[in-house]
Parts: sequence; C-alpha cells; structure tokens
Amino acid sequence: MHAASHPNGEPRADVAVVGGGIVGLMIAWELVRSDRTVRVIDPDPAGGASYAAAGMLAAVSELHYQEDALLALMLESAQLWPGLLDSLPEGTRDTGYRTAQTLVLGLDAADKRALTDLRAAQARHGLEVEPLSVREARRIEPMLSPSLSCAFHVAADHQVDPRRVCRQLIAAIGSRGGSLVRASAVALLRAEPGENARVTGVALDDGSGVLAGEVIVANGLGASGLGGLLAPLESALRPVHGDILRLRVPDRLRPLLTATVRGVVRGHPVYLVPRDDGTLVVGATSREDGLSGVAAGGVYQLLRDAQALAPAVAELELVEVTARARPGTRDNAPLLGRMRDTDGESIAGLVVATGFYRHGVLLSPVAADLCRRVVDGESPSSLDAFHPDRFSQAKSKEPV
Amino acid sequence: MHAASHPNGEPRADVAVVGGGIVGLMIAWELVRSDRTVRVIDPDPAGGASYAAAGMLAAVSELHYQEDALLALMLESAQLWPGLLDSLPEGTRDTGYRTAQTLVLGLDAADKRALTDLRAAQARHGLEVEPLSVREARRIEPMLSPSLSCAFHVAADHQVDPRRVCRQLIAAIGSRGGSLVRASAVALLRAEPGENARVTGVALDDGSGVLAGEVIVANGLGASGLGGLLAPLESALRPVHGDILRLRVPDRLRPLLTATVRGVVRGHPVYLVPRDDGTLVVGATSREDGLSGVAAGGVYQLLRDAQALAPAVAELELVEVTARARPGTRDNAPLLGRMRDTDGESIAGLVVATGFYRHGVLLSPVAADLCRRVVDGESPSSLDAFHPDRFSQAKSKEPV
Repeated sequence: MHAASHPNGEPRADVAVVGGGIVGLMIAWELVRSDRTVRVIDPDPAGGASYAAAGMLAAVSELHYQEDALLALMLESAQLWPGLLDSLPEGTRDTGYRTAQTLVLGLDAADKRALTDLRAAQARHGLEVEPLSVREARRIEPMLSPSLSCAFHVAADHQVDPRRVCRQLIAAIGSRGGSLVRASAVALLRAEPGENARVTGVALDDGSGVLAGEVIVANGLGASGLGGLLAPLESALRPVHGDILRLRVPDRLRPLLTATVRGVVRGHPVYLVPRDDGTLVVGATSREDGLSGVAAGGVYQLLRDAQALAPAVAELELVEVTARARPGTRDNAPLLGRMRDTDGESIAGLVVATGFYRHGVLLSPVAADLCRRVVDGESPSSLDAFHPDRFSQAKSKEPV
Repeated sequence: MHAASHPNGEPRADVAVVGGGIVGLMIAWELVRSDRTVRVIDPDPAGGASYAAAGMLAAVSELHYQEDALLALMLESAQLWPGLLDSLPEGTRDTGYRTAQTLVLGLDAADKRALTDLRAAQARHGLEVEPLSVREARRIEPMLSPSLSCAFHVAADHQVDPRRVCRQLIAAIGSRGGSLVRASAVALLRAEPGENARVTGVALDDGSGVLAGEVIVANGLGASGLGGLLAPLESALRPVHGDILRLRVPDRLRPLLTATVRGVVRGHPVYLVPRDDGTLVVGATSREDGLSGVAAGGVYQLLRDAQALAPAVAELELVEVTARARPGTRDNAPLLGRMRDTDGESIAGLVVATGFYRHGVLLSPVAADLCRRVVDGESPSSLDAFHPDRFSQAKSKEPV
C-alpha cells in the first residue's frame, strides 16, 4: 500500500468520488444536488471508457439471456434519463439526447434465427420489439442494404452523446460548488489500521489526500489497482477492450441514417449510431486480448460489418479510431453498493460503483440514484444482486 | 492575382524553393551544397504527401507499361540515393535507409497472370525480377499466407523513411545556411508586368515576399494555385488521394516481415513496408473521389488485402491512419524544368518541379540534380520528356 503523507489543509468533503467517467460524474451530480460537498478525483476526467462509448440507451436491445436483475436495473435507468437531463442547469443541456428509433437487423439466416430467438425472450420480459419486413426497414432507412435477412423495430431505445454528457455534468457539478481534483487516487485512507476500519478519504499520487465522510469508488478498472482493502475487486474486474470508429457523412449522403442501427452480421454484433452533427459512430468490438491500443482486426471487422448493413459506409470519412477497456465482471453486472468486511458488516465510509461493462452510460443515472440513497443511509433492495464483494463472498463459502 | 506589398528588407536569395516536401527539400539541399543562398517556403514543411509516403525506392516494381522515360528517370534516381545519403552531414544520417529485399506477391490466378506479364515487361527492360515458389517466399517470410498464387523476388528495390529523411534534410539545409520560411507562397513576383517577364521572387500570404534569382516551384498540387503565369499547370495537375496505415507489431509477432512486400490482391495493389522500429506501413489507395480525409472504404480495403497476404496483420495495433493527395499528371510523369513562354522561350528565373505522383520520394535526388543543373545554365536532355508545359503546348498545336 502506498504511504501517503498526511492530507493537506483542505476542508473535509462530504463525499469523494474516485473516477470522473460518466458514472462518477453522474454520482457526483446527484450528490451535489442533495447539498453535499463533493470532490471528483480523476487525472483525466471523461477520458476512459466514457470517451469511447457510443451512448445508446438500449435497455431493450441490450437484453441478454439470464440477466434478469440487470435488465430491471437497465429499464429503471432508461426511465431516469429524461429526468436527469431535465435536472441539468440551463446552459448545460446540450447532451445529444435523441429519441430516434432503433432498427435491429440480421444479415444471414443464422443471424435471423438468433434475433428471432432474442425477440421471443424480449417478449417474455414484456419488452416491445416489432418485426418489420426488410422492405419496411428500407423504407425507413433507404441506405440499408437490400441483402438483409430480418429487421426489428425498437421504439424504446434512445441515445445520448457521452462526451457531451460528461462535459455538461462537469459544468453542472461546478455550478453547484463541486470540484474536480486532477490527480490519481492511489489508496484509501482509514480511521485506524485494518481492512475493516472506517474509510476517511483517499491518498493521491502527488502525496496529498482528500478527506471525506464517504468515498465512492467509481473509477472503472482502476478500482482494482486502488490500495487498501479492495483486494476482492481485483479478481472481479477484467478489461474488455473495444474498438470504435467515428465517421463523417459527406453532405451528398446525408442523412445516411436517422435511426440507430444495431446489427448481427454473420454472428458479429455491430451498431451504427447517427449523431446530429452528421457523424456516425460505428462500434464496437469486444476483445480480451490485452491489446489496449486499436486492433487492426477490430477496425477491419467493424468496417466490414457496417458496410454489410449500409454499403455507403465505404464512402464516409474515417475521422477517429478509438480503443478503450470496459470494466467487465463475471456476470456482466456492476459492482454496486457498500463493501462488507469479513464478518459481513458494511465498511463505513466506502461505496463501490464500478464494473459497468458495456452499460456504463445507460446505468449511470440509476447508479447515481442508488449511491445517493446508500449515502443517505438506505439499503435499497435493488442492490442485493450487485454486491461488490459477491464473487469473493461466494468463493469463501466454497470448501477449501 | 494577390496584390503583394513590396518585399521587406531581407537580402535577395540566390534561390527560393516553394514547397518543403521531400522534393523541395532535396532540391534545396542540392543547391546549398553548391554554395547558393536558399530559402524554402512552406507553411507546414514535410506535412503533405511526403508525410504519408511509405518511402519505397522501387524503380523496378513500380514499372508501368509505356512509361519508358519515367523508368529511366527512376532508375537513375535509385542509383543517386546512396550518394545522396552519404552527402548528409554527420548527425543527420538517421533516414531509415534499408536495402532489404522486396517480395512481389499475387493472391489469385488473375493476379498471377498480371504479375507474370509485368515480369516479362521488366525483363524486356533488363530489370532483374526472379520468380519464386510460394514455398520459397514463405521460407523467407514465414508469416505470409499459404494461399498465394505467385511470388517474385526483386533485389534492387530498397526503402527510406520519408519523415526521417525530411527531418534530416531540414537540419542539413540549416547547417549550410539555408533557411525555412514558414508561410504560404501566393504568387510569383515579376520584373515587369506580363506572363513572360523574368520571375524575381515570391509573394507570401503574410503580405511580405522573398526575392530570389531563381524560383523553383516544388509545392506539389499547390503549384496550380500559385498566382502568376502558372495557368498551364492548373489543368496538368490533379489530386490522387491515398490512404495509408501505420501499425505496430507486438513483440510476440516480431519480426512480422523483414522484406518489403508488394502484392496484387484480387486486382488491388497493396504494400507492406516493415520499419526498423517495429512498425509496419500498409498502403496505399488511389482515389480520385475528392475526399481529402481518410476514406473508410480505403482503410477497409487496405486491411482486407494486407490480411490476405499476411493474416497476422489482424493482430497488429493500428497506430495511425493518414490520407494525403499526390500530385498526379496525365502521363504519371513529373513536370520538371523551365517553363516556356508563348514563343517557346524559357522564362527567366523560373523552374518547375512538381507532379511527382506516386514517385516523389524515389525521384527526389534526380529532381534535385536536374534542378541544380538547370540553375547552373545547363539544358539536360533527360528533361525533354518532362517539360512542365507539355500538356498545354501539345494542346495549342491541335487544330481548333
């Protein structure tokens, strides 16, 4: 553990949020709105996975089998988004929020079978997914390929621009007196030695520290490197790298698309998200190859599959290629709530909000709401499935 | 034409070179070495086509049918490269020059036919191209695909790193008293009004000017936008856009290749140029679609075709995607030498060196040598085929 010098003379904050991605910023915004003093600690706010994210608010089309608790959380968060956006102060509302429809497309017969099965699962959960003929889909989006095998319409899935949301959240937090500390958190500070002692703040890489009544660990994959009793998180989080492209649609091809398009192309998922400014976001690969930079094969696959859905993608200008790692967990659900000590008691002063994997943007409002309730002293039952120590607890119950 | 204010008090230079790409810099280096005072005018030296170029010195494998004069120029320039590199002062010799062999590969039967025909043409010109079995090629380069249709070995084609060459040339020019003017040339200055009058310097976009005994127009496509009697060039030059990739080979895959690989993949040319620093340059598309940015379809095609030759390309990190326009001409040969007036007389004080299309790096030493000889008062016969006004002259001879 890093030996931090005694924190400097800054007054103690009510809350220190470690991590200034969309989840940490959303939590900070929720907490400054509840009249708490908040510091957000990040050397490069909004520069991690949030920087790459396409920003689909896609609770319905992101459904995966046997992830019922996660689905409930996603649906709840999707409903919180409009109110969250309304909560932003005037002048910070340019977030790229769009309620454009989503089309889900398959290319070959196997893609059609997979999407038809998924639609049945969605229907069992009461989610509205409407089958379309390919002709109907192409009436909505004339630039789609005629060689599709199937099409579905999802009205409920919307989008934001995560870079803009983060920028606005930073401004909003500042407007309510919250502050940003541009440094790396290296370790938790404790009231006394020991892994169960109350957390009193965060030591920073510059040797200083931030004292706080509550520390919320929301720095994604960085959580596993944070010193001081977060050992259980180390094995719970793994980097799932993704490549994502930004393309510019030339004037003569605008609008290339108006709907968000999600496809399965010969088994590979791909999405095309049109933005108001005429750019198109195409994502995203999922790689566990350890390559943190952009993978040539990933870019190739995205361009290939995007062209299979909309051939004119070949004529767009490629303006940005980005790779980031998502914080993945074993059950694809976040690590959210208070950490518990070896006796199963909550550790005072410590809340965890990480492991959001592919769903950080969508889930950020519900994460913020739940963290605020935890800091208020509540124990929301919706957190039961997301205990941040659930993997290590389960393991300790196994016979050795 | 731009109305330039009177040039400021700077002393008149012997030579002003408009354009600080590899051709302009090489010319400037040749001229400072002949003890002339030289100014190179460029707002962004080495930032144009030279910035994208892979740097193959490939006189043999760049042979195209019916370009005999160009072939002679390329072969002469290839022979000048080693001496040119030796001419660079100590401390400026890190140019990435490599004499590694070149392998030429075809993927399908049609590619094999095209390359076999090309080899016959190369043989007729006395160029050494040795056929290999695919097995032999893969013994030299084990990472090549087994699914190739043919392979050839070219010993004579080498490479430099154009970015490094330009950096070293700038340093070398400075070490001999040459100077760089970071501004845009907007028009030629004349001794008196009229398109046939002696050129006396260059007007810059900041309102100042550079006076010089000789002006050498070496700014690629920019030449057609330069004010003052370069109208014939406007129709002679056209932008041929190209996309090019830089990839990083991970340690576990090094060396991916040691030879330069040039392929024809289902009719599409592609090359893979390994650098000493572990990067791989993959290029280049040729587009006349007017898109000056990176084309998504171009990147897709390069990755697809490079993978067809060496499947492990998919596992590389994509570190840079660049697009630039090459200055193309109707016969793919440069515009090189003195401009002539309407009476067929050379215009004093004006030399043109542009239109190098795909061959700027290879041809820069011979262009520099020829420009120096022209400035010395010679009329090299090897320039006869490259008159900068040859397209407009030819047209004026046609019956109207």
